[in-house]
Amino acid sequence: MKTIGLYKYLPIEHKESLLDLETDRPIPTRKDLLVEVKAISINPVDVKVRSPKENVEPSPKILGWDASGTVVEVGEDCKLFKLGDEVFYSGSITRQGTYSEYHLVDERIVGHKPKRITHAEAAALPLTTITAWEALFERLRINSDDVEGNKEKTILIIGGAGGVGSIAIQLAKWAGLNVVATASREESVAWVRKLGADEVINHYQSFTEQLTNLQIQEVDYILCLNHTEQHWESMGDVIRPQGKICSIVETEEPLNLNVLKNKSVTFVWEFMFTRSMYQTEDMIEQHLLLNNVSGLIDKGVLRSTMNQKLSPINASNLKKAHALVETGRTIGKVVLESF
Amino acid sequence: MKTIGLYKYLPIEHKESLLDLETDRPIPTRKDLLVEVKAISINPVDVKVRSPKENVEPSPKILGWDASGTVVEVGEDCKLFKLGDEVFYSGSITRQGTYSEYHLVDERIVGHKPKRITHAEAAALPLTTITAWEALFERLRINSDDVEGNKEKTILIIGGAGGVGSIAIQLAKWAGLNVVATASREESVAWVRKLGADEVINHYQSFTEQLTNLQIQEVDYILCLNHTEQHWESMGDVIRPQGKICSIVETEEPLNLNVLKNKSVTFVWEFMFTRSMYQTEDMIEQHLLLNNVSGLIDKGVLRSTMNQKLSPINASNLKKAHALVETGRTIGKVVLESF
Repeated sequence: MKTIGLYKYLPIEHKESLLDLETDRPIPTRKDLLVEVKAISINPVDVKVRSPKENVEPSPKILGWDASGTVVEVGEDCKLFKLGDEVFYSGSITRQGTYSEYHLVDERIVGHKPKRITHAEAAALPLTTITAWEALFERLRINSDDVEGNKEKTILIIGGAGGVGSIAIQLAKWAGLNVVATASREESVAWVRKLGADEVINHYQSFTEQLTNLQIQEVDYILCLNHTEQHWESMGDVIRPQGKICSIVETEEPLNLNVLKNKSVTFVWEFMFTRSMYQTEDMIEQHLLLNNVSGLIDKGVLRSTMNQKLSPINASNLKKAHALVETGRTIGKVVLESF
Repeated sequence: MKTIGLYKYLPIEHKESLLDLETDRPIPTRKDLLVEVKAISINPVDVKVRSPKENVEPSPKILGWDASGTVVEVGEDCKLFKLGDEVFYSGSITRQGTYSEYHLVDERIVGHKPKRITHAEAAALPLTTITAWEALFERLRINSDDVEGNKEKTILIIGGAGGVGSIAIQLAKWAGLNVVATASREESVAWVRKLGADEVINHYQSFTEQLTNLQIQEVDYILCLNHTEQHWESMGDVIRPQGKICSIVETEEPLNLNVLKNKSVTFVWEFMFTRSMYQTEDMIEQHLLLNNVSGLIDKGVLRSTMNQKLSPINASNLKKAHALVETGRTIGKVVLESF
């Protein structure tokens, strides 16, 4: 089968950074599905795992943690899917990724693909949607059923135009929250407004000043999707006493936790691979939430966050996509379609 | 009225570190009660606020954030208490403290004193009980009604023999949790066992090793009551994926938050003065929880954590009490009784 892999971790412009390869089609066992991949999308984690380092892999390392496709084989313990089902999913960071024609994934972290959208549009969603859903409704413990109550609450989404931000804005609006998103360029401001943000502020300027201008004294929740350490003090300034902050971005340096102490603030990490990495008992929540999102897409409540599409799926286009994501300025998601 | 106050922030052995003074009896307005103080207890925050620094106060600064006494006057907006009610409470860090014969306190953070115990025994409780209750049932979100479900869960209480630990162990057991407390001396180990800890480990030795020896792979919750930064990496090692850590102890240096990222761990501060300091809408929760605890004491479910009592309340005995708390080795609470 066609696979795009690497042996060495090189700058993206290097000719061997990603290679077109032929590898054996894997065989599903236990709870694994074998999926024929129709479309994939690129996330910052792809770039992070590929980033230059000394290691050399004895067999090809395959990146990619987003796919939409069709189930073509199932392991003996599979119960949730059957042959021919169309699925979308992110996979596990501890296994081979989705840059290949056929891919193995544990059915407990796979959802039924939305019918209303294409494989390309669906492939944009899983990793970022799982991240945003878990961040809002599990880590920050926002109750999505309490739409009326949530109207009294405000969330600040720092870095609203990226992949996670683009779906988080929609999910937060669906749950009834007042959403302030940050964006810094004309096109990203327009994008987050189109997705439903009530207010937009600039993450290069003072949060306190901008929120005060909007008559917002403090926010109940913060979802930090970029540069945790740069926004640390500002988050402490604007969070409400007993408020909650969730981040998905590793810090580059140690942080002064005391900033959050007087307000008894909660800080919580969201890492969407926690469940698959530790095989937690509640892994199946990712199956359930993807199905929920699929239903919301089909009802027209949510939309795909795909913003750029390349075809076919090969090393050349993947290098273009990685280079785009490496800028840190991508709006929505970059998708690749068809082998 | 008799008051023990300070003008200068001095080492406790200095003769002017705490002074016997006469001050005017204050007058309650609005939601304030005037309480005739019968007993007080000493907390680490007293020592922290008194710690040596340059400031000189123009009028006496009064410390003390725990009292048990009788309501003798009420402000015009008081609804929860009447003259003659016996009460116990901690007060607000932004106001004068309880080292005086009469003291003003907002009724929303005051509870009805348990009937079964003395004023001295009651004075041991408020600050630490509010802290432990908020930490367990609000910050860590343990559901105290789900006693059966909680039996499947384990909490590690680091520093179990101190004031907060002594009541937290009891509250955690009441809620059904499996409690592992840390203690390092023979007498503190005996104390935490008497309060109900299921297992005791030493906080100067490896958590992972000691828990493994107890057949405990990981813990669902951690309540850190001493040296947050010293236990940081160990807490990351033993916490369950998606688990929760609460601390009440400011860190002395910045911390590497990434330690908690792969497991999507929650870190939350508990600072019992948050509600009174920020006058949050839910301030009255402290009134309600103190009443709950009062009921649990009267039913014999919980016991006072008083471990030493000095009398009367004067500068000389308060200096002794401060010196004891400054060692950081106090077991349970030090109480002073009668002016």
